[in-house]
Amino acid sequence: MTAPLIRVGVIGVGNIGTAHAENLATAVAGSTVTAVYDFDAARARHVAGGIGAVAVDSVEALISHPEVDAIVIASPDGMHAEQALACIAAGKPTLCEKPLAPELENAQRVMDAEITLGRRLITMGFMRRFDPGYVQLKAELDSGVVGDPLLVHCVHRNQAPAPGQTSAKSLTNAVVHEIDINRWLLDDEYTSVQIMSGIPSKYAEGDLRDPLLVFLRTTRGVLVEVEFFVNGRYGYEIRCEIVATEGSLHMGDGSFISSAKERLIGRSVPEQWLGRFGEAYRLEMQAWIDGLRAGRVCSPSAWDGYTATAVANACIAALDTDGSVQVELPECPALYR
Amino acid sequence: MTAPLIRVGVIGVGNIGTAHAENLATAVAGSTVTAVYDFDAARARHVAGGIGAVAVDSVEALISHPEVDAIVIASPDGMHAEQALACIAAGKPTLCEKPLAPELENAQRVMDAEITLGRRLITMGFMRRFDPGYVQLKAELDSGVVGDPLLVHCVHRNQAPAPGQTSAKSLTNAVVHEIDINRWLLDDEYTSVQIMSGIPSKYAEGDLRDPLLVFLRTTRGVLVEVEFFVNGRYGYEIRCEIVATEGSLHMGDGSFISSAKERLIGRSVPEQWLGRFGEAYRLEMQAWIDGLRAGRVCSPSAWDGYTATAVANACIAALDTDGSVQVELPECPALYR
Amino acid sequence: MTAPLIRVGVIGVGNIGTAHAENLATAVAGSTVTAVYDFDAARARHVAGGIGAVAVDSVEALISHPEVDAIVIASPDGMHAEQALACIAAGKPTLCEKPLAPELENAQRVMDAEITLGRRLITMGFMRRFDPGYVQLKAELDSGVVGDPLLVHCVHRNQAPAPGQTSAKSLTNAVVHEIDINRWLLDDEYTSVQIMSGIPSKYAEGDLRDPLLVFLRTTRGVLVEVEFFVNGRYGYEIRCEIVATEGSLHMGDGSFISSAKERLIGRSVPEQWLGRFGEAYRLEMQAWIDGLRAGRVCSPSAWDGYTATAVANACIAALDTDGSVQVELPECPALYR
Amino acid sequence: MTAPLIRVGVIGVGNIGTAHAENLATAVAGSTVTAVYDFDAARARHVAGGIGAVAVDSVEALISHPEVDAIVIASPDGMHAEQALACIAAGKPTLCEKPLAPELENAQRVMDAEITLGRRLITMGFMRRFDPGYVQLKAELDSGVVGDPLLVHCVHRNQAPAPGQTSAKSLTNAVVHEIDINRWLLDDEYTSVQIMSGIPSKYAEGDLRDPLLVFLRTTRGVLVEVEFFVNGRYGYEIRCEIVATEGSLHMGDGSFISSAKERLIGRSVPEQWLGRFGEAYRLEMQAWIDGLRAGRVCSPSAWDGYTATAVANACIAALDTDGSVQVELPECPALYR
Repeated sequence: MTAPLIRVGVIGVGNIGTAHAENLATAVAGSTVTAVYDFDAARARHVAGGIGAVAVDSVEALISHPEVDAIVIASPDGMHAEQALACIAAGKPTLCEKPLAPELENAQRVMDAEITLGRRLITMGFMRRFDPGYVQLKAELDSGVVGDPLLVHCVHRNQAPAPGQTSAKSLTNAVVHEIDINRWLLDDEYTSVQIMSGIPSKYAEGDLRDPLLVFLRTTRGVLVEVEFFVNGRYGYEIRCEIVATEGSLHMGDGSFISSAKERLIGRSVPEQWLGRFGEAYRLEMQAWIDGLRAGRVCSPSAWDGYTATAVANACIAALDTDGSVQVELPECPALYR
Repeated sequence: MTAPLIRVGVIGVGNIGTAHAENLATAVAGSTVTAVYDFDAARARHVAGGIGAVAVDSVEALISHPEVDAIVIASPDGMHAEQALACIAAGKPTLCEKPLAPELENAQRVMDAEITLGRRLITMGFMRRFDPGYVQLKAELDSGVVGDPLLVHCVHRNQAPAPGQTSAKSLTNAVVHEIDINRWLLDDEYTSVQIMSGIPSKYAEGDLRDPLLVFLRTTRGVLVEVEFFVNGRYGYEIRCEIVATEGSLHMGDGSFISSAKERLIGRSVPEQWLGRFGEAYRLEMQAWIDGLRAGRVCSPSAWDGYTATAVANACIAALDTDGSVQVELPECPALYR
Repeated sequence: MTAPLIRVGVIGVGNIGTAHAENLATAVAGSTVTAVYDFDAARARHVAGGIGAVAVDSVEALISHPEVDAIVIASPDGMHAEQALACIAAGKPTLCEKPLAPELENAQRVMDAEITLGRRLITMGFMRRFDPGYVQLKAELDSGVVGDPLLVHCVHRNQAPAPGQTSAKSLTNAVVHEIDINRWLLDDEYTSVQIMSGIPSKYAEGDLRDPLLVFLRTTRGVLVEVEFFVNGRYGYEIRCEIVATEGSLHMGDGSFISSAKERLIGRSVPEQWLGRFGEAYRLEMQAWIDGLRAGRVCSPSAWDGYTATAVANACIAALDTDGSVQVELPECPALYR
Repeated sequence: MTAPLIRVGVIGVGNIGTAHAENLATAVAGSTVTAVYDFDAARARHVAGGIGAVAVDSVEALISHPEVDAIVIASPDGMHAEQALACIAAGKPTLCEKPLAPELENAQRVMDAEITLGRRLITMGFMRRFDPGYVQLKAELDSGVVGDPLLVHCVHRNQAPAPGQTSAKSLTNAVVHEIDINRWLLDDEYTSVQIMSGIPSKYAEGDLRDPLLVFLRTTRGVLVEVEFFVNGRYGYEIRCEIVATEGSLHMGDGSFISSAKERLIGRSVPEQWLGRFGEAYRLEMQAWIDGLRAGRVCSPSAWDGYTATAVANACIAALDTDGSVQVELPECPALYR
């Protein structure tokens, strides 16, 4: 009567892979999780057991499993491209966590494989596109009530870094979210990037430049500023203000509750990203499954993944430049237009 | 591997019945909608067609349909009790929109039928219990950070009334939400009620008393105040502030976006309740389906429906009293404890 | 070239008397402080010394001092009326801290003395009328943008009580501010009052009823609600929301700064009233001095003081009544119209 | 008994000169205005008449007037330096509106004249240092609760430009406020500046670059960002967020009132700067007069004026540079340390 359930296999069940698996199994209409793989076999069995899936022994076994219709890649960043290529080879639709690849040539290989195949199978896990806050922000902007965008001020603060944080990782792993979401908000591409930093926080280890100010300039001339601060200390906070010709729009954290206690009135901020973007992750999965049941592969695409890697790499080059660095992008392949 | 899908039949596909049907078909894990009934057969066919269900000719046909495992009652208020009794007779779990019945004796009949049967089948549609705002408010309160609750200030404002609004309907159809949600927030029952009103809005038709101040006193002595204003004009807004021994908690509308335009900086408010509580309706359905797949019938129960009707009726008696009116509640039947 | 400076004598230099003396000496145009009296002679000398005034030995010496043109009464509440009568007898304009008198007959005596004299000399220290927040609130209301007022919700919370707090003192010493300011905001008089309270805070000593809900009904039918809570614990907070036919207006605390720290984003609240109303006290003095230099005695008047005492007394009667208590006010004497 | 009143003469009674004159005459303790000069003699007579002062025929007549103890310069920008030199020659304390001079050599001449004289007479009209918002922000920062400052984000938006707006004027006339206030907030000097701009607003006339992003880097390495947007359209808004090692501080507009009307809840923003900084102008005058009565000349000094001009000039040079421009400052002269 309705389309059959999509049977999903999940590669990698760390924090985000587990969240994906549980959403697909219990909070998304139309999907079920049938197989799970993790390098840590005990962990794979534990997660699989909780949602009625089987744990398999290898990535290959998961990809070729007859009861796996579609795949989620949530493994470490450096493995994404290779696994995405294997999924394309198997002809199975795949949601790949960001980044598509840290290196531009590997992102290119995935994109080329899809172009050779002649159809899209890869959906990139840029979940902010499904966040209710960003979705409303885009709807307000597109409604035209504040006119045309001129500047965007983004704030992206973490409480504390993961071990081994570097300035390059700040860009490819974290600012990459703003690289993608502002392309989407503005429906525009970047032409150049620039970076500034001042005195680092005393909590920044080694030669980490933290906070960073990243500037992205679009083809239409909109200037997007991103403050990224991984040692923000007070919590996780994401803001986005679009300054436009007739007014401005501001996205905050959508909190419902404020409290008054001990001479302070205010709202709590979460410790990390799942506290802010939990619903975005669920809605991303729902959109992906809805697309698959209707025979479509939804955005963001491998081209979006390739572009994000290209811009993040230009940002790395800008880290030690006083002034701007050009972004070189090929023409968007026909498959992705 | 996982529990089978719950096949739901929906009685009544007006605004809220349609929202329920679409959520169950497309946004809730584990359910499908197989049958739809509406007094307006064309409307039933239209909604059924959009979600791959069949339209049936009568309430009886829907309740007895072999591919209907569970039922949603979203018909006009006066029919709820009779249809709930038929669902109980058929032994099928049922989510019944509020109120269980406008009249206390009909609410009693439904409760008695469950008690006679010896098990619960009815879940009441008090969706605010699933709203992310109220859920966080309760979690904060229960965490003890602000101490023990003393007062609750609730604001419930509509943009404009439905046709035929009366003061009694304000209480049984709208304030009933605050009657239920504050019992749940405080985990307490009411002992007396009181009502005040001042000058009515010039938009209040007939002898409608609008705005109304409703006061509910609990067994522990907490005083719950509800401002209900159906001609609020500026939009739909729900607020709840709990004043407690060590501080206070305030639930606002959780909006993400504010805009600056024409000498004003602020946020938009929705036109009506679906704009504020859309997610609560989806989560209510997810909780109901999750329960059914696990073999449980989730709260709120018929006892919660009965209590809400009893308190709303006391409020009607208080409309013309200068002072308080007692609430008479029987002991909670064992089935619901 | 301009009007001469007004030479002021101050009776009582506790917290508020000292604030008045310092404002008049250093922050108000057109005034100087020439004499100070306090029961504690050392304290009087200390305050006088800091602002170039003399300390005098008695209230009489201060009132009759040849270099005192005008007087501020900031002594304990029970002495206000007697001292105001002496000032009227001396023909000197006087700013009297609230209340005019705790007892209605003493308030009456002061008013009668002015009426007999045939001119106004007394200005009441209801400083909220000069607070930038309330002044803006009244300007917005009077502009008509939200239509006609229907309900007013006031919140008045203290961190902790002064020693010897009683329910009656909550009304005559604290809620008296809301009694006055809402008459002024609405340009209306009260016809009846009502009081509710629930479970008291565990910090409320003796039989103190805290928090209290006080209801004031005006001749036009506006219902004014005041939550007064002296054991609010988290700080001092004043709010006022006017619900009107076309929308609502809300006065908050006008804070400039919010901070983000330790998982919280919010603003600080002051410990007590001077932190919120310091500027109101200064502006009150400026308005009083401006009036005197222009040959006028500014409002609020002894009639305002009398009315506040009358309504506060009705509130005391309402403390133990289930329902409303009438307010009996004489016609406003011609001198005050 | 107290210090005598300071008799002030005001040069230039346009918008801000009139505000200064009226504050000194009616809202500042310890001052009176005795003489007024304006190029438009009728305007001078009108303003003088309203406050009991005389209108004089020339700048020289005002400066040498025997009943003028101190002078306010509120003439057009290009005349400030020459008039300040004349005031120094006359030995009269002077509050000079910003800028001290648009050209660095003229600012230098004023500073040199004071150094030659051997004492300070000039106070610069950087009134934000007296604004309750900035004063609280600095107090919070200096308290150490958020740790050490790392980044400052400033927003400075106007509704519309004055006629003849240029990018250079945006810097010397408007951004100069942020140049001064951030030196003061951070107690630091600037070492380099940088400017970015993107697509201009369609309301920006000629080749005006609007909005502008200005970056100021301090000796300790703090990065101060200023968004200046003269065609902001929605109103006048000033914000300042200090990102620090342990948290952040944010200064908003301190508004008391929000309103709910027509599907929007929010606060009004003023049309221009007097709506936001009216109290700062009054407090600036009070501080200046308090100092003079106590025999001191208060800050900000001619050195502060010189520095602001030097940095604004570096910003002009940065307008067409991709990258940073050094700020060259001499050592602070001993007189100003």
